[in-house]
Amino acid sequence: MTATHEQIDAIIRLALAEDAPWGDLTCEAFVPVDAQATAQMVAREPGVLSGIDVFGRVFALVNGDDAGGPLAPVTFTAHLHNGARFEAGQALATVTGPAHTVLRGERIALNLTQRMCGVATMTATYAAAIAGAVSAKGAPVRIVDTRKTTPGLRALEKQAVRDGGGHNHRYSLSDAVMAKDNHLAVLVQQGMTVGDAIRAARARLPHTTSIEVEVDRLDQIEEVVAAGVDTIMLDNFTPDQLREGVALVAGRAWIEASGGITLATIADVAQTGIDIISVGALTHSVRNLDLGLDINVTT
Amino acid sequence: MTATHEQIDAIIRLALAEDAPWGDLTCEAFVPVDAQATAQMVAREPGVLSGIDVFGRVFALVNGDDAGGPLAPVTFTAHLHNGARFEAGQALATVTGPAHTVLRGERIALNLTQRMCGVATMTATYAAAIAGAVSAKGAPVRIVDTRKTTPGLRALEKQAVRDGGGHNHRYSLSDAVMAKDNHLAVLVQQGMTVGDAIRAARARLPHTTSIEVEVDRLDQIEEVVAAGVDTIMLDNFTPDQLREGVALVAGRAWIEASGGITLATIADVAQTGIDIISVGALTHSVRNLDLGLDINVTT
Amino acid sequence: MTATHEQIDAIIRLALAEDAPWGDLTCEAFVPVDAQATAQMVAREPGVLSGIDVFGRVFALVNGDDAGGPLAPVTFTAHLHNGARFEAGQALATVTGPAHTVLRGERIALNLTQRMCGVATMTATYAAAIAGAVSAKGAPVRIVDTRKTTPGLRALEKQAVRDGGGHNHRYSLSDAVMAKDNHLAVLVQQGMTVGDAIRAARARLPHTTSIEVEVDRLDQIEEVVAAGVDTIMLDNFTPDQLREGVALVAGRAWIEASGGITLATIADVAQTGIDIISVGALTHSVRNLDLGLDINVTT
Amino acid sequence: MTATHEQIDAIIRLALAEDAPWGDLTCEAFVPVDAQATAQMVAREPGVLSGIDVFGRVFALVNGDDAGGPLAPVTFTAHLHNGARFEAGQALATVTGPAHTVLRGERIALNLTQRMCGVATMTATYAAAIAGAVSAKGAPVRIVDTRKTTPGLRALEKQAVRDGGGHNHRYSLSDAVMAKDNHLAVLVQQGMTVGDAIRAARARLPHTTSIEVEVDRLDQIEEVVAAGVDTIMLDNFTPDQLREGVALVAGRAWIEASGGITLATIADVAQTGIDIISVGALTHSVRNLDLGLDINVTT
Amino acid sequence: MTATHEQIDAIIRLALAEDAPWGDLTCEAFVPVDAQATAQMVAREPGVLSGIDVFGRVFALVNGDDAGGPLAPVTFTAHLHNGARFEAGQALATVTGPAHTVLRGERIALNLTQRMCGVATMTATYAAAIAGAVSAKGAPVRIVDTRKTTPGLRALEKQAVRDGGGHNHRYSLSDAVMAKDNHLAVLVQQGMTVGDAIRAARARLPHTTSIEVEVDRLDQIEEVVAAGVDTIMLDNFTPDQLREGVALVAGRAWIEASGGITLATIADVAQTGIDIISVGALTHSVRNLDLGLDINVTT
Amino acid sequence: MTATHEQIDAIIRLALAEDAPWGDLTCEAFVPVDAQATAQMVAREPGVLSGIDVFGRVFALVNGDDAGGPLAPVTFTAHLHNGARFEAGQALATVTGPAHTVLRGERIALNLTQRMCGVATMTATYAAAIAGAVSAKGAPVRIVDTRKTTPGLRALEKQAVRDGGGHNHRYSLSDAVMAKDNHLAVLVQQGMTVGDAIRAARARLPHTTSIEVEVDRLDQIEEVVAAGVDTIMLDNFTPDQLREGVALVAGRAWIEASGGITLATIADVAQTGIDIISVGALTHSVRNLDLGLDINVTT
Repeated sequence: MTATHEQIDAIIRLALAEDAPWGDLTCEAFVPVDAQATAQMVAREPGVLSGIDVFGRVFALVNGDDAGGPLAPVTFTAHLHNGARFEAGQALATVTGPAHTVLRGERIALNLTQRMCGVATMTATYAAAIAGAVSAKGAPVRIVDTRKTTPGLRALEKQAVRDGGGHNHRYSLSDAVMAKDNHLAVLVQQGMTVGDAIRAARARLPHTTSIEVEVDRLDQIEEVVAAGVDTIMLDNFTPDQLREGVALVAGRAWIEASGGITLATIADVAQTGIDIISVGALTHSVRNLDLGLDINVTT
Repeated sequence: MTATHEQIDAIIRLALAEDAPWGDLTCEAFVPVDAQATAQMVAREPGVLSGIDVFGRVFALVNGDDAGGPLAPVTFTAHLHNGARFEAGQALATVTGPAHTVLRGERIALNLTQRMCGVATMTATYAAAIAGAVSAKGAPVRIVDTRKTTPGLRALEKQAVRDGGGHNHRYSLSDAVMAKDNHLAVLVQQGMTVGDAIRAARARLPHTTSIEVEVDRLDQIEEVVAAGVDTIMLDNFTPDQLREGVALVAGRAWIEASGGITLATIADVAQTGIDIISVGALTHSVRNLDLGLDINVTT
Repeated sequence: MTATHEQIDAIIRLALAEDAPWGDLTCEAFVPVDAQATAQMVAREPGVLSGIDVFGRVFALVNGDDAGGPLAPVTFTAHLHNGARFEAGQALATVTGPAHTVLRGERIALNLTQRMCGVATMTATYAAAIAGAVSAKGAPVRIVDTRKTTPGLRALEKQAVRDGGGHNHRYSLSDAVMAKDNHLAVLVQQGMTVGDAIRAARARLPHTTSIEVEVDRLDQIEEVVAAGVDTIMLDNFTPDQLREGVALVAGRAWIEASGGITLATIADVAQTGIDIISVGALTHSVRNLDLGLDINVTT
Repeated sequence: MTATHEQIDAIIRLALAEDAPWGDLTCEAFVPVDAQATAQMVAREPGVLSGIDVFGRVFALVNGDDAGGPLAPVTFTAHLHNGARFEAGQALATVTGPAHTVLRGERIALNLTQRMCGVATMTATYAAAIAGAVSAKGAPVRIVDTRKTTPGLRALEKQAVRDGGGHNHRYSLSDAVMAKDNHLAVLVQQGMTVGDAIRAARARLPHTTSIEVEVDRLDQIEEVVAAGVDTIMLDNFTPDQLREGVALVAGRAWIEASGGITLATIADVAQTGIDIISVGALTHSVRNLDLGLDINVTT
Repeated sequence: MTATHEQIDAIIRLALAEDAPWGDLTCEAFVPVDAQATAQMVAREPGVLSGIDVFGRVFALVNGDDAGGPLAPVTFTAHLHNGARFEAGQALATVTGPAHTVLRGERIALNLTQRMCGVATMTATYAAAIAGAVSAKGAPVRIVDTRKTTPGLRALEKQAVRDGGGHNHRYSLSDAVMAKDNHLAVLVQQGMTVGDAIRAARARLPHTTSIEVEVDRLDQIEEVVAAGVDTIMLDNFTPDQLREGVALVAGRAWIEASGGITLATIADVAQTGIDIISVGALTHSVRNLDLGLDINVTT
Repeated sequence: MTATHEQIDAIIRLALAEDAPWGDLTCEAFVPVDAQATAQMVAREPGVLSGIDVFGRVFALVNGDDAGGPLAPVTFTAHLHNGARFEAGQALATVTGPAHTVLRGERIALNLTQRMCGVATMTATYAAAIAGAVSAKGAPVRIVDTRKTTPGLRALEKQAVRDGGGHNHRYSLSDAVMAKDNHLAVLVQQGMTVGDAIRAARARLPHTTSIEVEVDRLDQIEEVVAAGVDTIMLDNFTPDQLREGVALVAGRAWIEASGGITLATIADVAQTGIDIISVGALTHSVRNLDLGLDINVTT
C-alpha cells in the first residue's frame, strides 16, 4: 500500500491546477524568469517525517520535468527518510531550480508535506503509548487508521500512518468486508440471523476477501465468531468488557477495539488482549506540522 | 466564490472513486438490493453548518442521479441552511433512497461535511472574538483564510470560511499578486528597489489585478505604500507595531495583519486599526466536527 | 464486486468514442433523424445471460439520456435476468428509441453483451462439470477467474463469471497478496526462508489482507502452511498429488488448484478435496456468444 | 492505421489503473525495492508476433519513464519484429529493470501481447488459406476485419490484423459509409428507392467518403452498383452466387464477401472473383496465444 | 459528420471551465440567486444561422441540467433552424431560467454561436458565387473546407460549413489520404515514382480509404491519375490551366481546385469543369457575426 | 498571465486528438518511418511573432517527447522571440526530427501559430495607433482584450495580446467583478440603488477583488464612482462624452472606454483622458497570419 507514483502525481496535478490555473502572477510580475533559487525545508517543531518524496515531486511537476519540457530538471535531495524523527530546526530536504518553479511550488509542497508529517507524528505518539503491548494471540498490538481520511488524499494519509509506525486498515469499500450496526440491523429486519448472513456472505465472496463484523454487546460475540469471521470489532467496549470479549473470542478471530479511544485511554485498551486499535483521529483531526521553506535566490 | 456545482461534483466523484473503486463488498454481501433506507444526519456537538448541499449531493451521485440512471432519485431535505448554528443532538438533514446508496455514501458524505463544519465553526469562533471591531478606514475588521488549504478541497474550504462568517483572501496564485519576503529578496539582489518593482508590475498587470505586498519592518512601509499597492501585509507585528503601521499607511491601502495570530491575541490585533486578519489555522489545522448518521432501513 | 454504474458507463463511453468519434456517417446519409426504431436482441445459440443491463445502458448513453439531452429517453426492457439460461431463438431484450440511436449503438451493445454471455456460458459449463463436488473442508468446490482478463473490461468479465455460476479471485494486485514462483525465487536469492517472509509480510500488511502463496512441489507445503497463509495454491499438480497436498495441508488453509486444468480434467481435480479451481480460460480465450439484433424501423 | 503512441499509452494506463489501483501488495510485502530483474518473454506455442512494442511500453509506464520519474529507465529489447513468425520456445523480447516494475507489469504486458499475437496468428492462418487468390479486378484477394473488436482495444486489434497479413476495413462509423439491411429497410419504408438514396448520400457526403452497401440477393445488385457505390457487400452468398454477383457487378465496384465464412470455406470464396473477405472471428473469438515470462531476479 | 452531442458538450465544458473556474463573482455579488431571467438572442446583422443547438445547450450545462442537479431545467426555444437566413434585428432564440445561469452562460453561448454563424455566412457567400456551376462530370461544383480549423472546434466549424451550404473535406489525417508536395518530394528522394507509390499505398490501405494527390503542374497529372487516385488536387492553377487539367483527367477522378481562390476569382474557377473548390478562409479567417443577447430579469 | 506549460500542452493534445485520432494515413502510406526532415517556418507576410514556443512544442508532443518514448527528441530553434516584428520571407523557426513527426504536426503547429500571430499583429496595429497617449491619471493609455476569445484558446490569445503590446483585462468571471447593464437592471428591479449594491458587494468580496461597473450615461457616473469602484467602464460614449466623463470621475477610478471602437476612431478616444480601451476585435475577428512551412526531407 505504498502510494504509487501515479497516485502521487495525480494529487499534485490536482493541487497545482487548483492553485495556479493560469500561472503565478506574482512571479511573473516580480521575478526574472532566469533567476535560480535554492530552497531548504526546515522543521519548525519536532516530528516524524512523511511525504518527503511528495515534496520533491511537486517541484519536478511544476518545472515540467514529467513532460520532457525545455527547462533543466530541478535537483532534489532528501536529508532524511520517511519515518525518521527530526528536531525543530533540522533541515529535511533541499531543492534547486528556477526561482519561478520554487516559488510556485512552495505552498503546495508544504501543504502536502505538513499534513503527512502531521499524520505520521500523531500516529507515532499513539504507537509510542502502546509500545510493547502484545495481544492474547501473541502479536504486537497495532494502531490502524480508518476510512475517515481527507477525500482525495487517502493514499498519502495511509502512507503517513505507516511512516508513523501504524498499520493500515482496509483501503476502501471494495477490498474487504466490514459489517457495522446498520448492516446488521438490515439483517434482523429481513428476518435473517447474523450467523446465517455471515455464512451466506462467505459463500459468495472471493476466498481472498476478509470479513470483519462489528458488535457492541458481549452477547453478540459468540454468534459472529462461530460463523467464521476473520476479525471482530468490539465497538465502544470498556477495558473490562474488552477483556471479557477476548476470552469469549478465544483466539478464533482477530479482535479490533474501536470507538472513542484517546491517548489517555489507549494504553489500558492495549493491555486487554485485543490485537488492533483503530483511531479515526489519526487522519480526521490532524494539525499540520509546522515546516518552513527557506529560499535563497541566486541569479 | 460560492463553490460551483462542477467543483462540488468533481470532488465527490474523486472521493467515490477512491472509496469504492469496484463497489461496496459489504452491501453486496449483506444488504438486499431493494432495501430502502432513511438516514438522518445528527450533530454530536454544537457548531456552524457548512456543506449541507455537498452532503445531499454525495447520495445523488452514488445513486447515479447525475447520469439518468434507472434508479429512482434519492430524496434529500436540509433542515438548516449553511451558516446556521446548531446544537448537539440537532437533526441537520434527511436523505432517503436505496439502502445500498445510503450506506455506500455515508462515509464520504460525513468526511466532507464534518470538515466543512469544522472549518466554519472554527471561523465563527475567530469571528466572534473580533465582533464589532472597526478598522481605521471605518470598515468592519475581517477574518480571512490563506492558501494553506487541503489540496483538492480549496473550493469547499473557502466556502466553509464564508459560511462561518469569515471572508476569503485570493483564490489562487493566478487571481491576485502577493509579494512576500522571498520575492522582495530577489528584487534587492537584482539591484531593484521595491518601489520601482511595484510600479513596473502595475504597468504590466491587468488593471483588475490587486497588488498586495508583505513587509516585516515598519521602515519598509512608506516605500511600499507610496508605490501604490492595494493592500499591505504587516507580518508578525505586535499590536503596538500594528498601530504604528496603521498611522504610517494613513489610509492609502488596505492593511492585513498576519503571522501567528491566535484566539488569545486576535481581539487585541483587531483593535489596532488594521482591516484584515489572515489566519492559516482556519484550514490547515481543523478538527472535523462530530456528526453522525442515523440510518433506518425500511422494507 | 458487482460492476458499478460508474465502471459500466466508463467502458461504454470509451467504446462509443472509439466507434463513432464524429458521428455515424451512414445514419446521417441514409436515415431520417425522426425515424423511430424497435430492436430486439435475439439469441442465435443457447447460453447464459450476462450484461443485459450493459446492453440497455449503451443505448441510453448513445441517446444522451445521461446528460439530460433534448431527446426522449430510450425505453429498454430485459426479458431475462443476468444468470438465466436461454435457448437459440429466444428474445432477450427490447429497446425502442430514435433509429439513429438504435443503429449507432447496435455494434457496441452486441460486442459487450456477446463477450459477457460468452464468459458466463463458458463458466457455466465448467461449473456444471464440478456440480456437487465438495472440498475436504466441506465447502462446495468453486471455479474462480484469474487476472487474465481483457484490459479495460475486468469489471464486466468478473461480473460475467459470477453470472455464469463461478466465483471471483482477487480483483487486482492491490487487494490481496499472491506470491508466485518469481516472488519466492527472490526470497531465496536474498537468503530468506519462505516461512520468515510470510511472517514478515503478515506483520506489515493490513489485518484485512489475505495471503496466498503458490507452490509447485509437495515438499514446499508444510513451510508455507505453517507460516500461516490463508490460501495455498498448488500449481500444476496431478490429481494424486493434489490429494496428497490436501492431506498435508490438513485444513489449515484454503487450497487452490491451478495450471492447465481443462473441461476434460476438472471433474477429477474437483474430487481431490481442494476448495478452489482457477481457470484462466474463462476470460482469456472466450468466443463471443452469437447474439443478433432484429431492428424494426417505425417512422 | 498504425496504432499511435497516444492510443497505446492510453490503453496501457487504463489497464494499469485497473490492475493495481493502489500498488502491488505482494511486491511490497515480499520483494526488496532495490532488487533488479531481467525478464524474457518466451513463446509457448508457434505464432505470428504482434504488439511487441506494446509489451515493452507497459514496463516503461509501470516504471514511470513517461513522467520523468526518479528511477532509471527500464531497458527493452525486441528479438523479432511485429509480423514475424516464431516457434514454440523462441525468445521474443527481454526487459530489464527494478523487480517491482517487472513483476507489476508482467500480467498486463502478457494480457495485451497474447491477445495481439492471437489475432495476428489467426489472421495469418486465414491469409494462408487464400494465398495467391486474385480477384476479377486483378488484385490479390484480401482478408479484412470488422467492427466486432474488443471495446477499447480496436487500435491494437486492427494493428494485429495487419501484422498477421490481413487488411483493415473502416476504422469506425465516422470514416466510411456502410449501409446494411436495416438502413435499406428504412429507405423502403420511407418510400425511397435504394438508388435514389445512394445518389442523395453521395451528393451530401465528403468526396473523400467511401460508400459501401450490403445486399443479400442477386437482384439487388444492379440498382446499387448503377447508383455508384465504391464497394458492394454480398452477404451470405454461396460461392456460386458470388460468381454470379461478380459477373453482374462487372468491375464497377469493389466486392466484399461476408457472412459465416470459415477456414473450411474461405478458399472457395476466394476463387469467385470477389476482392475482399471480411471475417468477424479475427477479433471477436480469439484465443490468447500462449506466451510466458521467465523472470530472473538479480539483486 | 453532424457534430455529436458528446463533441458539443465537451467543447462547452471546456469553455465553461476556462471562463468561470470558481464561479461568477459578479452574479454572486450583484444578483439574487432566485432571480429569473429571459434572454433573447437577436441578430445585429444579416447572416446564416448555425449553432443554435449549441447556444441552447450552453445554458443547460451552466444550469447543471446534464447532471440531474436540483435546479429546474432552463427552457430553450429556437426560432429558426440551422441553415436559415436571418435579417438584422431578427430574434433567433429564447432561453429562460435562473438569472445566474443566463448571465454566466451569455458570453460562452455568444462566442460559439457568433463564430459558427460567421463561418456559415461566409460559406453561403462563396456558395452563392458559384450557384449553378456544374463540373465536367455533371455534378454541382462544391465548396469544401480544409484542416485550417480552429484547434478544438473542428466539429463545430465543419458543421457550420454545411449549414452555410458548403461541403466537408476529410475530417482528419486518419480518415482519408491526401498526399501533398512534401510527401511526393520524399518519394522522389527515395527513388520511387509517384505512380508506384500510389499503387503501393492502395495495396496496403483499407478499401474504404479515399486517396487524393496534389499536383502543381500539368505534366504531373497523367501519372497520378493513371495510378488510380480517387481525387486529384490541382494546386494554384489558373482557370486556363484548370481547364486543361480537366481535359487531361478525362473523368477518371474527382478534381479539386485549391490555392488562393477568393470571392473575386471563384466564379471563374467554378466554370472550368472541376468538381470541388477548397477554401481555407472559410474557417481560418472568420469574423464573428454580430449577435446580441437581450436579457430581461424577472424576479 | 503567461500561458503555463500545462495550458499549452492541454491545447496541443486536444488539437492532435482531433486531427489524427488513429494516425496519419498519408504518412503511413507514403513516407518511410525512418525518414528525417527539417522544416522551416517562414513568414509569408509581415507581422508580430507570438506562439513560437507553442509551435515548437507541437512537434515535441507529436514525437512523444513528453512521454519518454523511444524516439530521439525533435530539435527546435526559434529564430526570433515572441513580440518581435518580422518581414515577409523571414525564417521564424526550424525544427528537425522524423519526417512522420514533422508532417503530422505541420497543420496543428501552423493553425495555432498563425492565429496567435494574427492576434499579436492586430494588437500591435491598435497599439501603434495610440502610441504616446497618456491618460488624465498620467499613465500610458492601454489597449486591452475582452472575454470574446475563442473557446478553449483563451490562454494563448491573451498571451498573443501581450506579445502584440496590449494588456489583458480580467481572465475570467472568477477573478474580477464587472457589472454590466443587465446586472444593474436587476438591481433596479429589486428596488436597490447601484451605490448600495456596490457597497454591499465590496463588503462581501475578497479585498483582492477589483470591481468594475459599466455605465452608458453621464448621469450614472457619480453614484458609481462615489460608491468606490476600482474601474468605471464608459460604454459607447463619444470622445466628447468621454472627456466629460473623465472630468466627472476626477481621478477617483480607472476609466475604461468600450464599445465599437475601431482603428479609425481609437486615436481620438485615446486623447480623452481615459486609461483603458477594450477592443473585442483583437480576438473575435482575427485573420490568421500567413505563415508557411518549408519541409526538406533528408533520409
